[in-house]
Amino acid sequence: MTPQPDPQLGAAVSAADRAHVFHSWSAQELIAPLAVAGAEGSYFWDYEGNRYLDFTSGLVYTNIGYQHPKVVAAIQEQAATMTTFAPAFALEARSEAARLIAERTPGDLDKIFFTNGGAEAVENATRMARLHTGRPKVLSAYRSYHGGTAAAINLTGDPRRWPSDNGSAGVVRFWAPFLYRSPFHSENEVQECERALQHLEDTLVFEGPGTIAAIILETVPGTAGIMTPPPGYLAGVRELCDRYGIVFILDEVMAGFGRTGAWFAVDHFDGVVPDLMTFAKGVNSGYVPLGGVAISGAVAETFAKRPYPGGLTYSGHPLACAAAVATINVMAEEGVVEHAARMGADVIGPGLRDLAERHPSVGEVRGLGMFWALELVRDRETREPLVPYNASGEANAPMAAFAAAAKENGLWPFVNMNRTHVVPPCNISEAEAKDGLAALDAALDAADAHVA
Amino acid sequence: MTPQPDPQLGAAVSAADRAHVFHSWSAQELIAPLAVAGAEGSYFWDYEGNRYLDFTSGLVYTNIGYQHPKVVAAIQEQAATMTTFAPAFALEARSEAARLIAERTPGDLDKIFFTNGGAEAVENATRMARLHTGRPKVLSAYRSYHGGTAAAINLTGDPRRWPSDNGSAGVVRFWAPFLYRSPFHSENEVQECERALQHLEDTLVFEGPGTIAAIILETVPGTAGIMTPPPGYLAGVRELCDRYGIVFILDEVMAGFGRTGAWFAVDHFDGVVPDLMTFAKGVNSGYVPLGGVAISGAVAETFAKRPYPGGLTYSGHPLACAAAVATINVMAEEGVVEHAARMGADVIGPGLRDLAERHPSVGEVRGLGMFWALELVRDRETREPLVPYNASGEANAPMAAFAAAAKENGLWPFVNMNRTHVVPPCNISEAEAKDGLAALDAALDAADAHVA
Repeated sequence: MTPQPDPQLGAAVSAADRAHVFHSWSAQELIAPLAVAGAEGSYFWDYEGNRYLDFTSGLVYTNIGYQHPKVVAAIQEQAATMTTFAPAFALEARSEAARLIAERTPGDLDKIFFTNGGAEAVENATRMARLHTGRPKVLSAYRSYHGGTAAAINLTGDPRRWPSDNGSAGVVRFWAPFLYRSPFHSENEVQECERALQHLEDTLVFEGPGTIAAIILETVPGTAGIMTPPPGYLAGVRELCDRYGIVFILDEVMAGFGRTGAWFAVDHFDGVVPDLMTFAKGVNSGYVPLGGVAISGAVAETFAKRPYPGGLTYSGHPLACAAAVATINVMAEEGVVEHAARMGADVIGPGLRDLAERHPSVGEVRGLGMFWALELVRDRETREPLVPYNASGEANAPMAAFAAAAKENGLWPFVNMNRTHVVPPCNISEAEAKDGLAALDAALDAADAHVA
Repeated sequence: MTPQPDPQLGAAVSAADRAHVFHSWSAQELIAPLAVAGAEGSYFWDYEGNRYLDFTSGLVYTNIGYQHPKVVAAIQEQAATMTTFAPAFALEARSEAARLIAERTPGDLDKIFFTNGGAEAVENATRMARLHTGRPKVLSAYRSYHGGTAAAINLTGDPRRWPSDNGSAGVVRFWAPFLYRSPFHSENEVQECERALQHLEDTLVFEGPGTIAAIILETVPGTAGIMTPPPGYLAGVRELCDRYGIVFILDEVMAGFGRTGAWFAVDHFDGVVPDLMTFAKGVNSGYVPLGGVAISGAVAETFAKRPYPGGLTYSGHPLACAAAVATINVMAEEGVVEHAARMGADVIGPGLRDLAERHPSVGEVRGLGMFWALELVRDRETREPLVPYNASGEANAPMAAFAAAAKENGLWPFVNMNRTHVVPPCNISEAEAKDGLAALDAALDAADAHVA
């Protein structure tokens, strides 16, 4: 599977990268991006012959792993017939992708607006909500990530917002439930749910419900820490939105398309249907850039006779749509969603809980499906994080040591602040998952060294 | 080339489209998107057997036409080896695309930040400018389009901004030169250039130069009307930016990669080098969604030791980058840029001027390379547009009649307000171009009928 190493080519790729590629979220002279030669399934390898088990799914998007042969073939076939075509036309791949997505979205989310990725999906969902309601503000949670463009980054709760913060024009942030670090001093999930809903309603009432166009939430917040909301919370938010005429947007960019062991994370919450739902990543495992918004009948009706004022050159790009058609069909045929659910319940979840018993640095294990977080702490009693919020440099050394140890053990880990997320491809095999858990076991010793 | 008609499949594609696809910039129940069965070179065809010569290049992006075999093959090969990989790594296709682009950009625009399209490129360019200068405002022109996301649409001058207008927070709009409808009552290009620069400097001085992060201009404004700036204007803007410490952003999303008969439109203006240049569309003819920002050494230096706070999951997507590598190489090998220049100078330009002589509805012909506009008017003396600014419905009937007549003659035209743009693929053959001009000739009779 891994070809011959080729350090000379690797050096050339790295040299051109350093000369000409400007990387996301990075200080350009302080990074040394690994040159990657190839990838297949749950693994990738560099030009030196090192092979890594990918517990990140890229940026939590390769839900079917790398180079799935059926999806590769579908891209090649579509490229041979219609690589690209403009948005204002009906195309077979575009129609079929929309149909397959609408078939799986909950309720009457039956119209699909395609974008190139998640940020643009959030941009358009909030635009739709503002125009549908005629109201200016959108509420979002502090522990959240919604994308890098102006509207999306301002809705984001994490520190990546700060340098682009527009002074919260049109955005109000609130606290969502998170029992482990409860903003409401709750002692159990029932209390956390009640208090979080009370906090949200109080915020709505004091902001003025008539000024609020939408509430946007990641169904299960992703990069912010994989906090599955307590039973009743999303139903309560739905009820508040109905009561005050507010559009309910669920962001499933990371949580959707199998990640939680369901087609959409909202499927875990009986009867909850948002008015708009954003997606990207897993829709075609990022084989070709694609995102979108699934739209309810009521919101679509607003733009039945009145033009929807948004668009983009590559909306419903046929190559991206063909990749989505193939990915969804592969996931259905191969039972990828059910596999993710079973592996989460039977292998990853129990495996991580076992690690927590043996490693004092693990403060909490939480998650579902193929979507798990380990909260690393200095002290299990006080729950002091292993590194401070938004730490960098020396202050972040304990997490850096953990990540380096994982890589030495052949595991590429997802690390954010004081957490590692276990988010491998949804079709990872049991044996691969167990290999990854063993590598995590070894790497956690590096974290344990910093426990008080 | 055109396969057997298949009206039954066409009907199914249309039915699924109407049930599930939400289209850009449209009232969903007032559209009937044509179902397109295939496309090759400068042509596409529907399921009924109708074939159209594409004078739009999609949305002015298929600069090498549809289904170029070498680019299709490159996409298929990249799909077979590395379809996707995350942004934080060095990859062969990513490095090579950045190198080939940097090789062609002017001056020291040698670092490339990749996005999925033009809107995100503008989002990131303006973020870079604000952080580089520490200043809040960006100046943009009234006759402009910069993209559909929050920052990009607010920088846009045309009416597509209005429904998403954030009250001009952080944006100041000014008037760029346009002799045919001069904002400055100029009588010739020299005067228009001087007065436009005076207007811009006055605006800077009264806004407070220390509050201005950037000036953004399309090098040759595209959808707003293809107005090549008069000699000296861009050099004058460059000089103002230098004098006041302002970042000069040129938006080459539509004008770049051969459209004007040069690799970049700025190449027509000796010695002018912006600090940031956005691109998309022609970079890979939209075969896979891709855009980006070319960054000068000075701006890149700002993010050498300090993290650049922006990113996206598909930044530098390998499939998109491989398509860019193949497209750029094809354009170089086949002389597509030189062809566009020659065809503009020898065929399209003279052909359009000939049409103008015979059709009283043509008020002005302007353009270069494969980038031309016909300004349609009711009266050549008063220059009253054939339809009012931003007309729709009955008020827009004359332009709708023109478009319908073009389609009846087998030509798919680009229409915006009172203009038709002639923007075919940059590698259109001379015979095809002449066929298209003949179809335009016939269609312009429909416009002439509305001349006063």
